[in-house]
Amino acid sequence: MKQSSGGVTAAKGFRAWGVHCGVKSHNVDKKDLAIILSERECNAAAVYTMNRVKAAPIYVTMDHLEDGTAWGIIANSGNANACCPLSHENAELMCQYAAAATGRKPGDFVVASTGVIGQTLNVAAIEKGVPEVVAGLTADGSDAAAHAIMTTDTSKKEIAVSLTVGGKNVTIGAIAKGSGMIHPNMGTMLCFITTDCAITHEMLSEALHETVPKTFNRVTVDGDTSTNDMCVVLANGMAENPQIEWKDDNYTVFQKALRHVCEYLARCIAGDGEGASRLITCTVRSARSEESAERLAKAVVGSPLVKAAMFGSDANWGRVLCAMGYSKAPFRPEYVDVKFASDVGEVLVCQQGMGLDFDEEAAKSILSQDEVIIDIDLHEGQDTATCWGCDLTYDYVKINGDYRT
Amino acid sequence: MKQSSGGVTAAKGFRAWGVHCGVKSHNVDKKDLAIILSERECNAAAVYTMNRVKAAPIYVTMDHLEDGTAWGIIANSGNANACCPLSHENAELMCQYAAAATGRKPGDFVVASTGVIGQTLNVAAIEKGVPEVVAGLTADGSDAAAHAIMTTDTSKKEIAVSLTVGGKNVTIGAIAKGSGMIHPNMGTMLCFITTDCAITHEMLSEALHETVPKTFNRVTVDGDTSTNDMCVVLANGMAENPQIEWKDDNYTVFQKALRHVCEYLARCIAGDGEGASRLITCTVRSARSEESAERLAKAVVGSPLVKAAMFGSDANWGRVLCAMGYSKAPFRPEYVDVKFASDVGEVLVCQQGMGLDFDEEAAKSILSQDEVIIDIDLHEGQDTATCWGCDLTYDYVKINGDYRT
Repeated sequence: MKQSSGGVTAAKGFRAWGVHCGVKSHNVDKKDLAIILSERECNAAAVYTMNRVKAAPIYVTMDHLEDGTAWGIIANSGNANACCPLSHENAELMCQYAAAATGRKPGDFVVASTGVIGQTLNVAAIEKGVPEVVAGLTADGSDAAAHAIMTTDTSKKEIAVSLTVGGKNVTIGAIAKGSGMIHPNMGTMLCFITTDCAITHEMLSEALHETVPKTFNRVTVDGDTSTNDMCVVLANGMAENPQIEWKDDNYTVFQKALRHVCEYLARCIAGDGEGASRLITCTVRSARSEESAERLAKAVVGSPLVKAAMFGSDANWGRVLCAMGYSKAPFRPEYVDVKFASDVGEVLVCQQGMGLDFDEEAAKSILSQDEVIIDIDLHEGQDTATCWGCDLTYDYVKINGDYRT
Repeated sequence: MKQSSGGVTAAKGFRAWGVHCGVKSHNVDKKDLAIILSERECNAAAVYTMNRVKAAPIYVTMDHLEDGTAWGIIANSGNANACCPLSHENAELMCQYAAAATGRKPGDFVVASTGVIGQTLNVAAIEKGVPEVVAGLTADGSDAAAHAIMTTDTSKKEIAVSLTVGGKNVTIGAIAKGSGMIHPNMGTMLCFITTDCAITHEMLSEALHETVPKTFNRVTVDGDTSTNDMCVVLANGMAENPQIEWKDDNYTVFQKALRHVCEYLARCIAGDGEGASRLITCTVRSARSEESAERLAKAVVGSPLVKAAMFGSDANWGRVLCAMGYSKAPFRPEYVDVKFASDVGEVLVCQQGMGLDFDEEAAKSILSQDEVIIDIDLHEGQDTATCWGCDLTYDYVKINGDYRT
C-alpha cells in the first residue's frame, strides 16, 4: 500500500467538483456545494449518526442506498437541512437536481448536508448551482469538493492510497470534514470514500462497519454527536481486479487500506477540531479488553479538564487518572503508569498510580508540540486502543458562542 | 420552613472556623483549613464520589463513619490529597491533629480535601494550623469555614433553614464548594450539612440518599466527576424534637427541608461553575419517566455546544435537540417544544420538532440574563426533571489551562 495523490477522484472513473452557490450567503468566497460522480454504477455502503434526531438527508440516503448501489454524491455545507418542515422535501430535491443535470435517477445519489440546524435550506441556490458543479466535474476535482464540504474546518481533509488486489492496481481515495459536534457514534462528520476496487456490496459494507468503530468512532472533539454524520464508500469496480466476494486475503488487504484511509482522516478531524491548537492521541495499553481500553482512552481525550490542561501545556496527569476513574471501565488505579510524549521526547509522570517528580520544563516542552501522546499502561492484560481528540481553547468558545449569526 | 442565617453553624451546638495555614502556599490571603465541631455526638451520613479513583480522605471518612456517628469535620482546600504515596497517612494525620486539639478521637472526624491531584499535601502546615482553627471555633464561624473550602469558587456557598419538627424548632445549615470537575455522580463537590434535628442514623442516611440524586447529582459544570466529592450531614439532636425513627410526617418535613438546602446549594454550584457567566436551568416536562427527563435535561446542560451558545446568548435550539438526540433517552423528536425563558420574558423557538420564526433581538435579551431556563416539553407523559449547569466561557479555558502552576 502506498500513499498517492488526488483524494476522492484518485480512483479510476470518479470525477468531482465544488462551487459557491449561495447556501453560505454571507461568504461568497466559500464553496458550499459539491458533487462526486462515477462513470459506472457503484456498490455502496454507509454508516450513519446514532443520534436519535437524524437530519433529513440521512433518511433520504438510507432510502436511496437500500439496493446497495449508487452513482454519486451531492453534498452542501452551511446548512444541516435538519428540523425544518421542508427538510425531507429539500433533500429529495437536491437528488432530483443532481439527477437532471447528470442524466441519472434521483435514487442514484447519496445526499449529505452540514451546517446549522433548524434553518430552511436555500434550495433555490442549490438548483441554480448544480448545473455549474456538473459542468465542472473533473478527475482533478477532489480539492474543490473537499473545500465545498467544509464548515469551521481550517484545512481540507483528503487522502488517497494505492494497493494491489489480485494482481491489479486498486486505489482508495476520500475526502472528509469535521470540526465541531464531533463525538464517536458513527463518524460524527462527513466522509466520502471512492474506490475502483471490484467488491460486492456485502463485503464493502462489512469492511466499512469493521473500520468505522476503530477509526472515526474513536475521535472526540466536544462529545456532541451530530444529527448529520455520514460515512459513505462507493466502489465502481473499474480496477478490474477479481471481485472481492469473501473474507479472503484480498479482502484483508482492502480492509487494511480502508482502515489506513479512515484513520488518517480521523486524525485530521481530531487535530482540526474547532479551535484546536494540537492533536491529542491517547493510547491505553495492557488492558483486560480492547473495549475497556477504548472506553478509558475516550474518557481521557474527552475530558474538558484534560483538554484545557493540554491547551496550557500543563502536565496535570491527575486529571488523566480522574477521567479514567469516571469512564466506568474497570482498571486498578494502583497499577497505572502515565507518560506524556511527543516528537521532542517523553516523560513518565505517574507510576503505579502515584505521582513522580519530573522535570516541569521538559514536560512543558513535550506538551507544546502539534501532537501530544498520552500513553497509559494498565499492566493488566494484552489489549490496546488509541483514541484521538484535541485541546480545548479560547477559540472553541469563540467559534461556538455565536455560530448561527 | 423559612430561610435563616448562620450557614453551617446555624443549628444548635455547632461551631466552625477557617484560617490560612499554608496549603495554598502562593496565596496567603486565601483560607485553606476549616473545622466544624458539634458539642455532642452526631448521627452522621454521607454520600461519596462514584469515581473509581477515590482520594484518600474518602476512604478514611468511610472508615470513620462506619459506626454512623461523628463529632466534626476537618477539611482543607488547595490540595486534593490524592494519588500520592503518603495520601492515606496524611488524611489520618489530619484527623489526629483535629482530635488532639479538641480532646476527641481521630475516628470522630470526617476528613475532606479539595484541590490539585497528585501533589504531596503540606501536612506540616495543617498540623501548625489546627490549633489556630480550634481556638477560633465559634457559632459565627460559618463564613470563615465556607471560605476555607473554596478553590476556584468565586463566592462562598451557604444556607440555613428552620422548620418545625414534632413541635420543636429545628435548623438545618450547610456550606458547600463547587466550581470545576463538577458532574453528577454523587455531589462532585464538598457539602457539609449540620442540623440539631434528632434523627436516627438510618433515617438521616435515607434522607440524604433520597436528596442527593435529585439535587447535586443534577448539576454539571464540565462532565468531570472529581475524585474527592463528598456530601456529609451531621445531626446532633439538640433541638430536642421527638427523634425521627420512621418515614412519618416529621421525616417528610425534614427531608423536604434538606432537599431545599441541597437544591439551593446545587444551583449555587452550577451558577458559580468555573468561568461561568450564567446559570443554565433545563427542565424537561411531560416525559415518560423522571429518569428519561433527567437524562435529557442533563445532556442539554452538559453539551459544550449548548453551553457555548448560552455564553454567546445565541438561541441555537438545534443544539438543544441534538443533545437530546444523543442522550440515549427515548423521546419523539416530532413532539418536542423548546422554549427559552428568563426574568425578562420567554420565547418559543421550536414546536413539534420544527423551528419557528422568532424575534432574535428578544431572544438575545432573554438569553443575556443571569439565569436562563431551557424549557422542553416532550408531550409524552407526566414526569418532569430539572438539571442545572452553566455556560462555557473563555474563563473556563483560562482557569483550567494552567491550574496547577
